[in-house]
Amino acid sequence: VEPAESFTPVAKRILCLPGSLRRHSWNRALLRAASSAAPAGFELTTYDDLAAVPMFDQDREDLPTPSLDQLRSAVAEADGLLISTPEYNHSFPGVLKNAVDWLSRGPHSTLIAKPVAIMGATTGTWGTRLAQAALRQVLTATEARVLPSPTVFVAHAEKSFDADGRLCDPQVAAALSRFMIAFGDWISHWSRLPGLVVQG
Amino acid sequence: VEPAESFTPVAKRILCLPGSLRRHSWNRALLRAASSAAPAGFELTTYDDLAAVPMFDQDREDLPTPSLDQLRSAVAEADGLLISTPEYNHSFPGVLKNAVDWLSRGPHSTLIAKPVAIMGATTGTWGTRLAQAALRQVLTATEARVLPSPTVFVAHAEKSFDADGRLCDPQVAAALSRFMIAFGDWISHWSRLPGLVVQG
Amino acid sequence: VEPAESFTPVAKRILCLPGSLRRHSWNRALLRAASSAAPAGFELTTYDDLAAVPMFDQDREDLPTPSLDQLRSAVAEADGLLISTPEYNHSFPGVLKNAVDWLSRGPHSTLIAKPVAIMGATTGTWGTRLAQAALRQVLTATEARVLPSPTVFVAHAEKSFDADGRLCDPQVAAALSRFMIAFGDWISHWSRLPGLVVQG
Amino acid sequence: VEPAESFTPVAKRILCLPGSLRRHSWNRALLRAASSAAPAGFELTTYDDLAAVPMFDQDREDLPTPSLDQLRSAVAEADGLLISTPEYNHSFPGVLKNAVDWLSRGPHSTLIAKPVAIMGATTGTWGTRLAQAALRQVLTATEARVLPSPTVFVAHAEKSFDADGRLCDPQVAAALSRFMIAFGDWISHWSRLPGLVVQG
Repeated sequence: VEPAESFTPVAKRILCLPGSLRRHSWNRALLRAASSAAPAGFELTTYDDLAAVPMFDQDREDLPTPSLDQLRSAVAEADGLLISTPEYNHSFPGVLKNAVDWLSRGPHSTLIAKPVAIMGATTGTWGTRLAQAALRQVLTATEARVLPSPTVFVAHAEKSFDADGRLCDPQVAAALSRFMIAFGDWISHWSRLPGLVVQG
Repeated sequence: VEPAESFTPVAKRILCLPGSLRRHSWNRALLRAASSAAPAGFELTTYDDLAAVPMFDQDREDLPTPSLDQLRSAVAEADGLLISTPEYNHSFPGVLKNAVDWLSRGPHSTLIAKPVAIMGATTGTWGTRLAQAALRQVLTATEARVLPSPTVFVAHAEKSFDADGRLCDPQVAAALSRFMIAFGDWISHWSRLPGLVVQG
Repeated sequence: VEPAESFTPVAKRILCLPGSLRRHSWNRALLRAASSAAPAGFELTTYDDLAAVPMFDQDREDLPTPSLDQLRSAVAEADGLLISTPEYNHSFPGVLKNAVDWLSRGPHSTLIAKPVAIMGATTGTWGTRLAQAALRQVLTATEARVLPSPTVFVAHAEKSFDADGRLCDPQVAAALSRFMIAFGDWISHWSRLPGLVVQG
Repeated sequence: VEPAESFTPVAKRILCLPGSLRRHSWNRALLRAASSAAPAGFELTTYDDLAAVPMFDQDREDLPTPSLDQLRSAVAEADGLLISTPEYNHSFPGVLKNAVDWLSRGPHSTLIAKPVAIMGATTGTWGTRLAQAALRQVLTATEARVLPSPTVFVAHAEKSFDADGRLCDPQVAAALSRFMIAFGDWISHWSRLPGLVVQG
């Protein structure tokens, strides 16, 4: 395999969406760790108001909804989305599904052709495996461009982070670094192919 | 196959959860039709305030949340849940996932061993097939008792209901009738086996 | 919760299907361990010829296929099926899917209303979580009666079994014991309700 | 959206895998129709011996298996795979899963980074929707590059093909044409980025 073409080192603005609303959530901690692990040129910002977005209601689609407009703008301006999800009942949280459903609607879905990367952390044993699979299926339906691999599944999260929520597990750190490099390549890759929008 | 044992004809109180918040939703119309199709002894009530339940947040679990207490009581008092779901992005809506996640939490999950039946309607061609599969997987994780069959998938819903949202499709009516009879048997079946609570 | 009705202590003949064909497979080892962990009255037999069943082909449905007839008889005579599956590419092996598809066909599907329990072992970290979810969905489609819980996911299987393939992990042994008791209750439960066959 | 860069008009060799072994299968008919609908420069060949590949068995991985070597070569030489799947028990057939599992194994998986497109046909109402979702999940696990959209779901297949198995439905023909154009773009897209191999 030949080396990849060199990509222009343009800043990559990543909007981070944590799937858990808990203040000291492991998924927020994982997003912070991803920010540290990312190569130069990445700017990660966490969107912290998903709970303010109302439940999707088709009757409200034409009403002004400031929290939703704010989310849509943040997604539209980002070069990529990074979602870190817990696993609840073998799937991802309703708050993420609700956000995805709003974003996918309307004449100008902000998810079509948007590069997205998924990861997840849990204190459980099984590492958000079913949650990530379910979220990947849903995002594929929106025509977002979901990074196929590598993957980051953090199980037993309480062992990988210290009391201040800082990553202290070198294996996870190395995995995050590879993951962010691959996500950067993924974003560059699609950004050079604006015409490749396939429609159903 | 021998005939089933005769079941004591006790009233069955069914709590209906529509997955769509739209006022003239096809799934609400389908729930109304299920009420008409159900055999004598069924009492179907629709829970109409799912949108009032806040997004799940583990930090709020110990705070008083009236909308949630109300939902929990309604579920606890019901003999069974009947959920009618649309399909958004190849899965069911966030508003339903959010409700299920809250209900499944805490020392007294109201979903454990609760009989549940799933159906769905859409104006699309594919009949909520992926939404129902995803919802079934999530409810199985909660240890609810999901009716395995028969199934009700209503595609092209606009052809099955009249302008007032009344079912006008005899095939769907017959399917709903079989579905409700089977759901009644399912509820009776579990109600006579209070000890069969299997735990992971 | 009141104690369960006492069940008549009838022998339960369980047909075990290993999803892996490897001779020293962890899933075969797990099935042997389940046999040891099962309460008195269980008889577990492993069906070892799944590889001999040809690939499903509708054109062959009316041809005599001895390997298939043998499998069908074994399933029909069993009070329940116990399937132990590895995870290949985020799902269960083709050999199991092929067997399920044959068994589900024809006027006398041997899977309808058959009690089934699913477990799985892997040397990997994630414990066959996606394989079991996928297999559960498929078996639900056949109208088999899949034990909803408890679940048995064995990760890092090489640490739970000794060099001779004998279980040496007391936590897994205890989980298997609970699992087999619950499966016995599940079988008894359905055997007393011959009439409850719901059809789509 | 700007027009796509013009792609060098190189021939695209597509290996077609029908999921059904039935001789007059709708999925074979759909593959033939895809061949007619494809733009100039496509060469579609159907691989017709999936049934000859033995069931996956790790103990046989180092044994010579001519049917498997033949399949591997055919996949390796193809620029892309086109899979047309029926739906059996809410998923895709075991014969396809078995082939995917063999292909994904070993030091030189022929699926890594291979462009794949999925479609499906059925005489049923629901159009192989669950089969395609399950197959997409499995192929994503192999690191194949699955075309995200558009999608082709053919329901009521008997109405779309004539007695000789020729497509007679202009809507399906148009959908197939768009699908093959998008698949060609997808293949070109990846072929120009040989370095973008992300690994877990």
